[in-house]
Amino acid sequence: MISGERFIVTYFLTGSEKEAYAKARDICVEQTVEYPAELLGPGLIRDEILGRIESFEKTADGYRVAISYAIEITAYELTQFLNVVFGNISIKPGIRVEKLDLPPALLAPFKGPRYGREGLRKLLQVDKRPLLFVALKPMGLTAEQLGELAYQCALGGIDIIKDDHGLSDQVFAPFEERVLRCTAAVEKANKETGRRSIYVPNVTAAFQEISGRSRFAKEAGAGGLLVSPALTGLDTMRYLAEDDTLALPVFSHPAFQGSYVTAVNQGMGIAHYALYGQISRLAGADAVIYPNFGGRFSFSREECRSIAAGTQVPMGHIKTIFPSPGGGMTMEKVPEMLEVYGKEVVFLMGGGLFKQGTDLVANCRHFRQLVDNLE
Amino acid sequence: MISGERFIVTYFLTGSEKEAYAKARDICVEQTVEYPAELLGPGLIRDEILGRIESFEKTADGYRVAISYAIEITAYELTQFLNVVFGNISIKPGIRVEKLDLPPALLAPFKGPRYGREGLRKLLQVDKRPLLFVALKPMGLTAEQLGELAYQCALGGIDIIKDDHGLSDQVFAPFEERVLRCTAAVEKANKETGRRSIYVPNVTAAFQEISGRSRFAKEAGAGGLLVSPALTGLDTMRYLAEDDTLALPVFSHPAFQGSYVTAVNQGMGIAHYALYGQISRLAGADAVIYPNFGGRFSFSREECRSIAAGTQVPMGHIKTIFPSPGGGMTMEKVPEMLEVYGKEVVFLMGGGLFKQGTDLVANCRHFRQLVDNLE
Repeated sequence: MISGERFIVTYFLTGSEKEAYAKARDICVEQTVEYPAELLGPGLIRDEILGRIESFEKTADGYRVAISYAIEITAYELTQFLNVVFGNISIKPGIRVEKLDLPPALLAPFKGPRYGREGLRKLLQVDKRPLLFVALKPMGLTAEQLGELAYQCALGGIDIIKDDHGLSDQVFAPFEERVLRCTAAVEKANKETGRRSIYVPNVTAAFQEISGRSRFAKEAGAGGLLVSPALTGLDTMRYLAEDDTLALPVFSHPAFQGSYVTAVNQGMGIAHYALYGQISRLAGADAVIYPNFGGRFSFSREECRSIAAGTQVPMGHIKTIFPSPGGGMTMEKVPEMLEVYGKEVVFLMGGGLFKQGTDLVANCRHFRQLVDNLE
Repeated sequence: MISGERFIVTYFLTGSEKEAYAKARDICVEQTVEYPAELLGPGLIRDEILGRIESFEKTADGYRVAISYAIEITAYELTQFLNVVFGNISIKPGIRVEKLDLPPALLAPFKGPRYGREGLRKLLQVDKRPLLFVALKPMGLTAEQLGELAYQCALGGIDIIKDDHGLSDQVFAPFEERVLRCTAAVEKANKETGRRSIYVPNVTAAFQEISGRSRFAKEAGAGGLLVSPALTGLDTMRYLAEDDTLALPVFSHPAFQGSYVTAVNQGMGIAHYALYGQISRLAGADAVIYPNFGGRFSFSREECRSIAAGTQVPMGHIKTIFPSPGGGMTMEKVPEMLEVYGKEVVFLMGGGLFKQGTDLVANCRHFRQLVDNLE
């Protein structure tokens, strides 16, 4: 019933060696049986179900422990997998998830991203240069106005044009009208330019609405879906990514997810590498949006570099995905960002695109020129 | 198109007065238009869509700001509401959500908990005493063994008998078999005792499985549903609570949700009051599980008291719900917990129940005796 195959989660622990080791032993219990260990007799539960310390070592500022779990306790569900990785212990300070090592037998039931880097490049017909990504805003514009912006962005050479993540189904720009107008606008621009820009609506919504909105978007000709997985649940993103009747690339937005990373330097939460890299991939994102270093958020250059690493570390059949740094990005930052990310990146420009001048098409062309020579 | 009705979110901010005020202004932009404020001309967007600072005051350790938002920008969806409250700014350190003030026009589309305190008492036929809640464990037992435990707990006088939150659909105790055995076991015990214990299966699962498992549980005779909303998305819990064909009480489990509170003392995340109290109510929980003070987790007595306050603060038609402290609870702690919570509480005993002795029925009866004189 239990195969003996295990997956490994590496945690960083704070405290003295004694405290950290006690914490490691506690994780083995808390994340599995949550039951007095001394009451477990010999047998399957004690031998297989309990977490197992595989290694324990000192680091510069704490301890690193690798704990293995039987793959069967995940029930091969993303929700229960995440519960084993960081369920109850998310509530305990001084424990940080560092990385995941998942054997093929655990990865097998997960499809991961449908497109990944290679698929998205093919879809957008962009060989080598970084991809360009912008958001339609500000909230409060009508669907017609947003459609006009989408047209200008596509005309200006932007590859991926998404709803701002706060656009859902507000009275001033209802979902269906917005999707119809924006898809039509991008299609019109594509005919004029001969390029393949896509419009990506935000389908983050109520549980009972998400499938319907996604399907509506697909039928209207949208080229992808934007999801904020901390609002919908990470598994909802996985579901959308795996849905063969949609077959659309999925873009993950970090809204409401920040608490997992704001205290990583105090030894809490989930490391950027694991959250934006490994977990987002497992949850089906083809590109993962997060705030770039040096912007109005607080991610460091090293943290951003670790995200890029997490998007491409080998994970069995799970495809590599694009890091998509945004959040206060400006044209001036492109060269520095190329240094950190190379060309395997989706540059997300938000408000910065509008600051450049009043002619949005010209702003987009300027943005595009910055990467065109990298093809 | 915009009614002028606004809701208020109170945030705590760290830093100097100047820094905190800049942060407050930034929140007004970041959570709404996410667009260079200087480019917004006069009109609806600048006047109504932008967040608005309603008050700003110094506290003992930082600043407290009340920011109002137009109710229409939530689209009356829990996902987008949470995005306005703490979407992008969850990624910025030094901002903590303190509390929500929601006008009737915003609350109207939300049903909130179906039962609440009064309804759950009526359902379980318990007038005044604290309710008793236990978890079936350890993971690794068979469905038959879990059923036997459920029988003993019901026989011993426990009101609510739930799956441990790590039980989903593992090979050693598949969901359907477990639900059938546990509902049958509790029904049998109820016939013998004349009481109304309920069995509450864990329906935290893949997006496409949750509705089906909940319906299976309902048809099998389960008395409630256990959900970990940080794993499924808070809105999934709301959906289950509002589903009239289920009409079951919903119990919220805090797994994977801890990162919102582990750094509250550093001025980050969502205050216990707002998260376990107000937000959990809005998301339909009839009782909210969290780790009690003095246990193996780190919640303070004051934080637990604030949760109890958040479960009962007036919120229009949204019912009051039960705080359900657990996590290392033992029989010895009952008197101290009564001091903090009074009788309007659901005591959740996990592993502690098994530590008392090898006769589980006797352990449950002992637990029950501690509250029976409070009826």
